[in-house]
Amino acid sequence: MTDQRFYARQGPFSVEELSRRLDVPFQGNGALILEDVASLKQAAAKDLSFFDPKRGAQLIGTQAGACIMSKDVPGMTALLTPKPYETFARAARLFYPLIEEESVSWGQAIHPTAKIAASAVLSPGVVVGPHAVIGEGCYIGPNAVVGRGVVLGPQSKIQAGVTLSHCVIGAQVQIAQGTAIGQAGFGFMMDGDSPLDFPQLGRVLVGNNIIIGANVAIDRGSLEDTEIGDGTRIDNLVQIAHGVKIGRGCIIVSQVGIAGSTTIGDRTILAGQVGVVDHVTIGKNVRIAAQSGIMRDIPDGAAMGGSPAVSIRDWHKQSLALHRLIQRKNKQEE
Amino acid sequence: MTDQRFYARQGPFSVEELSRRLDVPFQGNGALILEDVASLKQAAAKDLSFFDPKRGAQLIGTQAGACIMSKDVPGMTALLTPKPYETFARAARLFYPLIEEESVSWGQAIHPTAKIAASAVLSPGVVVGPHAVIGEGCYIGPNAVVGRGVVLGPQSKIQAGVTLSHCVIGAQVQIAQGTAIGQAGFGFMMDGDSPLDFPQLGRVLVGNNIIIGANVAIDRGSLEDTEIGDGTRIDNLVQIAHGVKIGRGCIIVSQVGIAGSTTIGDRTILAGQVGVVDHVTIGKNVRIAAQSGIMRDIPDGAAMGGSPAVSIRDWHKQSLALHRLIQRKNKQEE
Amino acid sequence: MTDQRFYARQGPFSVEELSRRLDVPFQGNGALILEDVASLKQAAAKDLSFFDPKRGAQLIGTQAGACIMSKDVPGMTALLTPKPYETFARAARLFYPLIEEESVSWGQAIHPTAKIAASAVLSPGVVVGPHAVIGEGCYIGPNAVVGRGVVLGPQSKIQAGVTLSHCVIGAQVQIAQGTAIGQAGFGFMMDGDSPLDFPQLGRVLVGNNIIIGANVAIDRGSLEDTEIGDGTRIDNLVQIAHGVKIGRGCIIVSQVGIAGSTTIGDRTILAGQVGVVDHVTIGKNVRIAAQSGIMRDIPDGAAMGGSPAVSIRDWHKQSLALHRLIQRKNKQEE
Repeated sequence: MTDQRFYARQGPFSVEELSRRLDVPFQGNGALILEDVASLKQAAAKDLSFFDPKRGAQLIGTQAGACIMSKDVPGMTALLTPKPYETFARAARLFYPLIEEESVSWGQAIHPTAKIAASAVLSPGVVVGPHAVIGEGCYIGPNAVVGRGVVLGPQSKIQAGVTLSHCVIGAQVQIAQGTAIGQAGFGFMMDGDSPLDFPQLGRVLVGNNIIIGANVAIDRGSLEDTEIGDGTRIDNLVQIAHGVKIGRGCIIVSQVGIAGSTTIGDRTILAGQVGVVDHVTIGKNVRIAAQSGIMRDIPDGAAMGGSPAVSIRDWHKQSLALHRLIQRKNKQEE
Repeated sequence: MTDQRFYARQGPFSVEELSRRLDVPFQGNGALILEDVASLKQAAAKDLSFFDPKRGAQLIGTQAGACIMSKDVPGMTALLTPKPYETFARAARLFYPLIEEESVSWGQAIHPTAKIAASAVLSPGVVVGPHAVIGEGCYIGPNAVVGRGVVLGPQSKIQAGVTLSHCVIGAQVQIAQGTAIGQAGFGFMMDGDSPLDFPQLGRVLVGNNIIIGANVAIDRGSLEDTEIGDGTRIDNLVQIAHGVKIGRGCIIVSQVGIAGSTTIGDRTILAGQVGVVDHVTIGKNVRIAAQSGIMRDIPDGAAMGGSPAVSIRDWHKQSLALHRLIQRKNKQEE
Repeated sequence: MTDQRFYARQGPFSVEELSRRLDVPFQGNGALILEDVASLKQAAAKDLSFFDPKRGAQLIGTQAGACIMSKDVPGMTALLTPKPYETFARAARLFYPLIEEESVSWGQAIHPTAKIAASAVLSPGVVVGPHAVIGEGCYIGPNAVVGRGVVLGPQSKIQAGVTLSHCVIGAQVQIAQGTAIGQAGFGFMMDGDSPLDFPQLGRVLVGNNIIIGANVAIDRGSLEDTEIGDGTRIDNLVQIAHGVKIGRGCIIVSQVGIAGSTTIGDRTILAGQVGVVDHVTIGKNVRIAAQSGIMRDIPDGAAMGGSPAVSIRDWHKQSLALHRLIQRKNKQEE
């Protein structure tokens, strides 16, 4: 369920009303009242979801009350359309009109509804939005922004120029200068030159005892949250896309990029400038060499290198084989 | 012609006066009055330009009133020097003394000369410079900066901590947290340890219905503008250098870097961490795989991968050939 | 010696007291008074240092008064532990309790103890911390932050949204929008899921006549300073880790990442997206091609390419050999 601290929901809507407003036929219980949107995996009985076989989600086992999909399934209340993803994007916009949160200025730098612990230190130029919660012993550096509804656990240190929105942050978390957490992710369908943007209705959940470097970008989830596990260390200029799940005790070195919905297990190390594609699973205790490109699932304990990545042993052999090939050529030329 | 909203011009200067102040001889019409500097391509009759064969610009067909160059050409008024680029840099500084815009504080956070639509929302901590224009329905997030002369079209949303300068932005543009648009580009000649910096006198022109992610950097043009086409989507931590032209409906994924004066056609997709060198042309409907390195022009419709990039088909074959080579070795070792 | 403008030191402590508080035995002069911590290379007679053979530092020749190490050495006052790095981290925290600087708000945007030259221009929203020094003719852009004790030489231009801390900056330095300089580096030991963070007690020393681009991250040193040499040009989104030393007249193109304690000689050029591992030395007048990965020392004057990098000549041959291999295959398939 979408977090009401961050998103102001409209509705509810009956299936019949959604059918009319979205201009697609329905099947099943038209009187069913839907209160929210959710992924198939997380949806409950009053949620609207969608099924698009190209996106890999599972219809079987969903608890969704109704589903936007291209073919009807016996016993399921459905809105039927050849374009489920686009139609769901439009439906989500009915529940969450996009610009609502941006239609009124907060007015004051420290909003009167924010709850700020007595021992928290707020530096000059800090802006704290409505209903934000700042824990005991927190430090907020100059010109940092703590957005509407953001929660900061005790003893967390937010440095100058950081911007936080749509996130819940644990205890003893340190975030370095200029980092942006909780902004909308990169989600849309391009139709010719005209993109249809997908609603970004999730959060970023940051655990405890985590350090995040400078000028990092961590997007909030689209339907499912982005998550960073306890004890993890993230270096400067790292990109973490929407819906990524990073485990505990991970090391994410500078300039790594992790694409949407990818999962990374505990104690895994990504060296500098590694890229990981979307929707893959990297296991626990994995080690990825610098500048590698990960294009598929990686099992627990693996050590990988290269782009596209292979086992670190094979990667060294590749480099050596190329090296010898060139040395032979160089000798022939002498 | 340089945009007077952003740059305060000195002069005009006669060819004779420039010859004296730059300490280089002239040929042709010494009494000719020059009002501005421009690239050969964009120069008009009262503009001073320069010709440096190493930089690939075309002398033929230019409308420039006068040109800084190393050899004289019959019929062209010229300032003659073995170092046209350096001399032009010095000339441009006569027209645009560099620090002018930084010599007086704006004084107030919202400058009284800024034109801000009644329906625009300005958050706490926002700074708006002289003569900036903010359209109807715009949202400016906390601690964002809208620089001198910047124009924002209607319904554009600028999130917290964004800094805008020297740019003109269309309607329904969204810019995420911490992004910097319009700063000076990376242009200089290194002479031993002593760089000579080239004037950065252009703008960034951002079209309509564009989304730009967090902690992106888009430099303003040097002499010709940087441009982003309608409907384009740009992810987090992307680098777009001075003078780059990106078409309509493009998708630029996280951590891509595009070097100066490169052109990218409509509906082209650059996947994550791609690098593109300067002064190349990538066609329309091109697809570049993640982490690829583009070193030369790419025709319309191509699909490329690898660094240096080859056709995606050949790139997969390269990976496969290396893989098989190593597998043979591994078997031999067993 | 740690710079007292940035770090409030506790102590001094006798060797005996440190032995007791750290719960490790000592050998040698227990009454010796230690005033500070330092690297083996920089330590003086009243400094405590540590020796960890895995970290490559040299014990021979050190001037340290006492050393945390795993084996005793005749004639040296030592604290003995199988984990010198961890024990030193704990010792450094006794001298420098971490959160001291963040326990009291600066109160005012421009701190009354800051020394700001009469000709300096401060834009709206600027925050200047205690004891900061801003030189003649400096410009500080909107919402920029100049931290406690930071020094800016004359004629330096700091653009909007920049955050400076723990740094000393020379004359005529330009820093573009959103860049973060002086934040804590990425230093810790991971023990299962529980990291032990290493104190970051150094500075960033930026020379004269330097330009640094937008959304760059330059971490302060851990024990030894991060340094940028005169005349160097650094592009957008570059990562410079703690303890890196960059020479004079270098060119560091966009999205380069340089890992900790690496040294780069004068007039060396790193093209876009290059990655350099930690603790290596790149010589003078070196040229590294875009997207290369540097894994070891590079001699003066070398030209390198590829990942892992080889000579530029061999790199071109590698690309050509792969290209021919695939072309042969493509022909066979026709």
